[in-house]
Amino acid sequence: MTETFVVVGGDAAGMSAASKVKREDPEMDVVVFERGEWVSYAACGMPYYVKGEIEDLEDLVTVTPEQFRQKRDVDLRTGHEVLAIDPDAGTVTVEDEHGERFDQPYDHLLVGTGASAIEPPFDGIGLEGVFTIHDMDEADAIDDYLEAHEPETAAIVGGGYVGVEMAEALDERGLSVSMFEMLPHILQPFGEEAARVVEGHLREQGVDLHLETAVQGFDGDGRVDRVAFEAEDGLEDAPADLVIVGVGVAPNTSLAEEAGIELGETGAIAVDEYGRTNRADIYAAGDCAEATNVVTGEPDHVPLALTANRAGRAIGQTVAGSPTPIGEIAGSAIVKAFDIGASRAGIVDEERAREAGFDPVSVSIDASSRAHYYPGATDLTVTLVADRGSERVLGASLAGPEGLKRIDTVATALEAGMTVSELQRLDLAYAPPFSPVWDPILTAGKVLSGNLE
Amino acid sequence: MTETFVVVGGDAAGMSAASKVKREDPEMDVVVFERGEWVSYAACGMPYYVKGEIEDLEDLVTVTPEQFRQKRDVDLRTGHEVLAIDPDAGTVTVEDEHGERFDQPYDHLLVGTGASAIEPPFDGIGLEGVFTIHDMDEADAIDDYLEAHEPETAAIVGGGYVGVEMAEALDERGLSVSMFEMLPHILQPFGEEAARVVEGHLREQGVDLHLETAVQGFDGDGRVDRVAFEAEDGLEDAPADLVIVGVGVAPNTSLAEEAGIELGETGAIAVDEYGRTNRADIYAAGDCAEATNVVTGEPDHVPLALTANRAGRAIGQTVAGSPTPIGEIAGSAIVKAFDIGASRAGIVDEERAREAGFDPVSVSIDASSRAHYYPGATDLTVTLVADRGSERVLGASLAGPEGLKRIDTVATALEAGMTVSELQRLDLAYAPPFSPVWDPILTAGKVLSGNLE
Repeated sequence: MTETFVVVGGDAAGMSAASKVKREDPEMDVVVFERGEWVSYAACGMPYYVKGEIEDLEDLVTVTPEQFRQKRDVDLRTGHEVLAIDPDAGTVTVEDEHGERFDQPYDHLLVGTGASAIEPPFDGIGLEGVFTIHDMDEADAIDDYLEAHEPETAAIVGGGYVGVEMAEALDERGLSVSMFEMLPHILQPFGEEAARVVEGHLREQGVDLHLETAVQGFDGDGRVDRVAFEAEDGLEDAPADLVIVGVGVAPNTSLAEEAGIELGETGAIAVDEYGRTNRADIYAAGDCAEATNVVTGEPDHVPLALTANRAGRAIGQTVAGSPTPIGEIAGSAIVKAFDIGASRAGIVDEERAREAGFDPVSVSIDASSRAHYYPGATDLTVTLVADRGSERVLGASLAGPEGLKRIDTVATALEAGMTVSELQRLDLAYAPPFSPVWDPILTAGKVLSGNLE
Repeated sequence: MTETFVVVGGDAAGMSAASKVKREDPEMDVVVFERGEWVSYAACGMPYYVKGEIEDLEDLVTVTPEQFRQKRDVDLRTGHEVLAIDPDAGTVTVEDEHGERFDQPYDHLLVGTGASAIEPPFDGIGLEGVFTIHDMDEADAIDDYLEAHEPETAAIVGGGYVGVEMAEALDERGLSVSMFEMLPHILQPFGEEAARVVEGHLREQGVDLHLETAVQGFDGDGRVDRVAFEAEDGLEDAPADLVIVGVGVAPNTSLAEEAGIELGETGAIAVDEYGRTNRADIYAAGDCAEATNVVTGEPDHVPLALTANRAGRAIGQTVAGSPTPIGEIAGSAIVKAFDIGASRAGIVDEERAREAGFDPVSVSIDASSRAHYYPGATDLTVTLVADRGSERVLGASLAGPEGLKRIDTVATALEAGMTVSELQRLDLAYAPPFSPVWDPILTAGKVLSGNLE
């Protein structure tokens, strides 16, 4: 009898799994329910749409609904919201775009419900001109707002990836940008040294950066025009004709929770190495699910695109009959900030390392991105962290104008469980236009190795 | 009693070892004999000096003789040639710049005699205007020749790194460049796919590329003006006011051989994992010595800068009392060719893999260097090779306008002995300006993984 694979949520994890199942086992029925209209889109590209570097929002769509339906034979139903899962009956309850409800049986189910932008209870968060940026419609709305109201000032609340990318985008659109971060530094997962480099660059570019500053709310007459924040001498405010709230995302877990699917300590859905939840035949992947951190070996929640795609694909293989691990995560990430950028992998923060039971030692160095004498060489700031006892590499961050994908060397070393000695002996590629003889990663390894002795 | 560490040859391996010994054990006497005047220079930068991108040859010197002598307290003697090693007596015989000879005792000796450019017995190789490029004086001589004689045409014999880099340099200097390669493709260690990409680009840039073409010799009245080569219809010739012969290098081993130091099968000096030769207290490192290939586990000879620096540094640590392995080599390399480049690691050639006892399977794909919708995205050609039985990654090459240092991910995976499944599950960093969600390395891994099933 033909089996049915049902997917809840038509973005990275869901569509990767759906496609993979159809490729490996064309006989299986694959049904995807997506409550919105967009599927399989590159959310990470949205700031560049707002910036004006990408003309059509459609360019961010990897595979169109038509392609999924016709070429890949996936029964994709947009405008369909899954209201409930009944694991005992093996069915999901679905509401279509006309409000009609029906039950859909499944043999295998993937929960790929994603995450939502957190909206803190700021005063005035409902004002026109206050946006989060977590889906395509929101990106479109920001673009429309820029066209319609020609705002001159923007306040960005939160100095994470989205905040930094939107600062660049809005500056490019001609706005005067201020940024508010509650913590002592922006880009918290990148560690202090990388953050300092990016902060300096943002300020050079004219971003009015407020660190350790809590936003209190937004003001305006229907439409936002000011942001209020807690300064040393009490409440202050600044002009803000447009506000982007980018303080993080929370996994969409209510559907799973109500079906008795267990959440992990991070608050996302707990899964095993094959992406299986605690309920039979139910998988979870993407921004709503946990994954195992390669450094700590513990469940972690790092909602990023590759993790979702990779897990979705692996679950597709497993459902089609070839059990495939979803892979571990190093939290590898890279972000552009105007003319420079930063990247990170593993555990960069010493406190986080101590919490995970390590005795962290770290170094930060500045190294040249190319041979020092080669035109265009720039400084790359490298932070490398290791465990004193085992000498195992725990993580790293990079910041500078070029060479940031070098973080992949560290991500690979983390997956292999390499020590600092092993890392600094790697045979990395050298020629003057591309690297110094000792790649910056090797140089950081040499210095850290000396500190471990 | 104070020990003496004697180094023969003042370039990468020798000076790295000398410096490291003085840093770890300042009490030790360190004497370096260098027959030329240049020490510790970046030979890889020479094409860019000829190109005109680097103003002074001195810019290629990492540490000056004065700095070695004064800051690092190394007894560096330039213009001193070591004529013989007497391992039983523990001495070397040295001739200084005035022809005076003396014996220098050692407790530890490092042979770092480097390699020399091969000069095949071409007719007319002694003509003025025919150059190899393997030391700083030669780079200077080429530059002088360009100034003095304003050649209009150049022939490059050999399509290796040096040939490709010199084609770019001489084109920039306004010469019309032809290139002659005996094999079916240039850049032999990079494999056919990467070579094809570079060949296409060289031709686009106006290089007159002759593959599978043997040069017979050079003609001219005292000064070269033509190159003769074997064409399909017999001997042909082409104008060449300047000739660069770059057909490879051979290790300088005669000093070692005469002292009874064993050479390996590759013809370079055989060493163990600490860089020790078969004679007590005598080490060898750099372009004159072998190193262990990380893929085959066998001795190999890949004369590149990092290998020399790394082995020299490790030997310095060992001599100073902390035994340190010199590290294995993946043959990692990267080369710029006009507006594109290529990189490689491990074993790319299937025949070479079979000789080493593997059953190679390889794929070549074109992948985008950035998210497909992000401005500036270009094609990267990736070849990935694995062993069918063990599924172990054996090597890879890349070619394209950007993203070539991604080869370091493969070099790291090779060091860790990863399988293709492990490689394609790596958590590599993604953001639209830097990579597609699936990095090209991961995409190649996915495709190859499918072919292994």
